[in-house]
Amino acid sequence: MTTHPRSAPHEYSLAVRVYYQDTDAGGVVYHSRYLDFMERARYEWLRALGFDLGRLTRDFNIVFVIRSATLEFLRPARLDDLLQVTARVAEAGRSRVVIAQRILRDHAALVEGTVNAVCVNLDNWKPVGIPAAIRHAFEG
Amino acid sequence: MTTHPRSAPHEYSLAVRVYYQDTDAGGVVYHSRYLDFMERARYEWLRALGFDLGRLTRDFNIVFVIRSATLEFLRPARLDDLLQVTARVAEAGRSRVVIAQRILRDHAALVEGTVNAVCVNLDNWKPVGIPAAIRHAFEG
Amino acid sequence: MTTHPRSAPHEYSLAVRVYYQDTDAGGVVYHSRYLDFMERARYEWLRALGFDLGRLTRDFNIVFVIRSATLEFLRPARLDDLLQVTARVAEAGRSRVVIAQRILRDHAALVEGTVNAVCVNLDNWKPVGIPAAIRHAFEG
Amino acid sequence: MTTHPRSAPHEYSLAVRVYYQDTDAGGVVYHSRYLDFMERARYEWLRALGFDLGRLTRDFNIVFVIRSATLEFLRPARLDDLLQVTARVAEAGRSRVVIAQRILRDHAALVEGTVNAVCVNLDNWKPVGIPAAIRHAFEG
Repeated sequence: MTTHPRSAPHEYSLAVRVYYQDTDAGGVVYHSRYLDFMERARYEWLRALGFDLGRLTRDFNIVFVIRSATLEFLRPARLDDLLQVTARVAEAGRSRVVIAQRILRDHAALVEGTVNAVCVNLDNWKPVGIPAAIRHAFEG
Repeated sequence: MTTHPRSAPHEYSLAVRVYYQDTDAGGVVYHSRYLDFMERARYEWLRALGFDLGRLTRDFNIVFVIRSATLEFLRPARLDDLLQVTARVAEAGRSRVVIAQRILRDHAALVEGTVNAVCVNLDNWKPVGIPAAIRHAFEG
Repeated sequence: MTTHPRSAPHEYSLAVRVYYQDTDAGGVVYHSRYLDFMERARYEWLRALGFDLGRLTRDFNIVFVIRSATLEFLRPARLDDLLQVTARVAEAGRSRVVIAQRILRDHAALVEGTVNAVCVNLDNWKPVGIPAAIRHAFEG
Repeated sequence: MTTHPRSAPHEYSLAVRVYYQDTDAGGVVYHSRYLDFMERARYEWLRALGFDLGRLTRDFNIVFVIRSATLEFLRPARLDDLLQVTARVAEAGRSRVVIAQRILRDHAALVEGTVNAVCVNLDNWKPVGIPAAIRHAFEG
């Protein structure tokens, strides 16, 4: 489960350092913080694909809304660790997308998760088809 | 899904107010914050059952470690909302326990989640049986 | 400095429990978290005076914006502590107000701070006089 | 990355992106978050000087503890902003150091602050002289 190749095709990876602000009195990263790290990776990945938040709202009038998430905590991350936080499309529908994400230290997975997001129109918050340009970018 | 009785037997409920610190620029509660609200409910529930953190470490030499979590975001919570955050045992093994949690506003579920925790010994962080006193308290 | 009476006139106090989410790997509350606790006390105090956030925006079309803050960390708060977070008006101008806040455990001050806020109009974000009703409430 | 003009001598600068997790329902960065950004800059600066956290504890048996902080909020940072977070020694005593920090966007200061820290021995948490190697590094 933790041994899949580090460079899955189309997998984005962001380096994230662990600071005191991310840890708790148990000496490890506080569990909800991993969701925050995962958000950072998703937005840097969209930016790397050419779709920063400004462009999503200005050019497409959309935003991605999270509908559900799952998290598996395999091993704890610790203060000062340098983590790799990945993101890739695991599944895509017309307006829905499932992002698979991992948090790694030295190629070992510490956390694995999925985030289910829906593309909504900013005017009425109703689901709308993911723009073709973004869909193509997701597919690499 | 959102209509089950508010007072399931043995369901604990904690009131949590939403402040600016809990919200994001989308005008709603930031998604990872719900996990934080859920932690507050779990520890107040343990405290209400007579098992505060001091007692868990001092009398039992244990701590509960989270192994996985799932979250479904049904409707957004907003600034100044007064939420009810619930917790109940959905399933219990020798050392494992699945806690089902909901976040409600005016009896409507906004978030539903599960937290899988394992009872570990503080000396070696190995799984250990949940103490009988706590198990009985869980069962009401 | 830490021995002034707990019940200064017109001093509001909110109980706040410390959870894992508030602590860091040093075993104490992470320093920026005290600002979060202080926000909770300010809004509960406004609410107790009859001015919840909804009323501030709907009836007065204002919001309080923080211009500066100071924090003195005297002693650390720890996991599971039950803290009292206070707020009182230290100084008030036409549109400005200085709120003095303390974080106490068993009547001993752990943190002392001030928050300088300005009352601004929601349409143009320009300073505007603090409404008389709120000013009177502040003065007790 | 650390070479921007404005460069006061020996001023370190870290790039920090603003994500949803950093913002609040007012549409801007939540005020206590700036302290978190400032922590990140301080530790990356120590690391750049050759003193990561591991080395501080292992080689020197010390940690820096924050005694007080001041913050001036000049202009709000917003979602997706790319900020520069600076740190420099404003004043140094035997065991105390005052770090001046700024948060900039396009060379304009959004936040200015100071953090007063004390170097303490990890065994007894008593103030101890800042090691000469670190003091020299601070002085550039």
